[in-house]
Amino acid sequence: MSAPEIVESDLDPAIAARLKRDPAGLVAAVVREHGTGDVLMLAWMDDEALHRTLSTGRATYWSRSREEYWVKGDTSGHYQYVKSVALDCDGDALLLTVEQVGAACHTGAHTCFHDDLPVRVEAQ
Amino acid sequence: MSAPEIVESDLDPAIAARLKRDPAGLVAAVVREHGTGDVLMLAWMDDEALHRTLSTGRATYWSRSREEYWVKGDTSGHYQYVKSVALDCDGDALLLTVEQVGAACHTGAHTCFHDDLPVRVEAQ
Repeated sequence: MSAPEIVESDLDPAIAARLKRDPAGLVAAVVREHGTGDVLMLAWMDDEALHRTLSTGRATYWSRSREEYWVKGDTSGHYQYVKSVALDCDGDALLLTVEQVGAACHTGAHTCFHDDLPVRVEAQ
Repeated sequence: MSAPEIVESDLDPAIAARLKRDPAGLVAAVVREHGTGDVLMLAWMDDEALHRTLSTGRATYWSRSREEYWVKGDTSGHYQYVKSVALDCDGDALLLTVEQVGAACHTGAHTCFHDDLPVRVEAQ
């Protein structure tokens, strides 16, 4: 596995030192809606996307398919105003709490998680 | 980027066909607590981990550090009884809703997301 690719960024070095990036230099960002607590989507950030998110208060991701930074809402108007960001215990995931304008999902659904899989629910 | 490595699994082929795996053959699994809605942790699943989760009702992940399947709670007793599993719109993330026994985090914290980062909160 190759070393993580770290794009030069203005991210606070103390925060950068705590990130455990995947081989593409990314950490996962779970996005939760302020107020409802609904889990809206999962996206990806490199150091620069996290820096832009923390310094502007607008959720900014790295698009793995388009290979570019992506301010959520710039094309759809469905911005995410960030209320808080928490890093997890092993540094490979972030939890953003956001005010979501409009639908989070590009399909127009409230959240991206709308495809239920069949699960055997065990009696406890 | 190498082709995704797909471990042979008993996962329903109709579900397997909808997964968009990373180069290591994994999808992200966001774990939310039933009742409170708290986001507890993020872990990783390959096809077989998802199959075991769906067929047993106990959250089972792939540990990237230990490179082995991991039934959450087998060592700690902090099992996750799965209430529902949803796949996201682009097939690279799952949302599990679980009954969490004890603490979700190995540090003993309720959730793994307990390290707040400073964010500029924009007035809307």
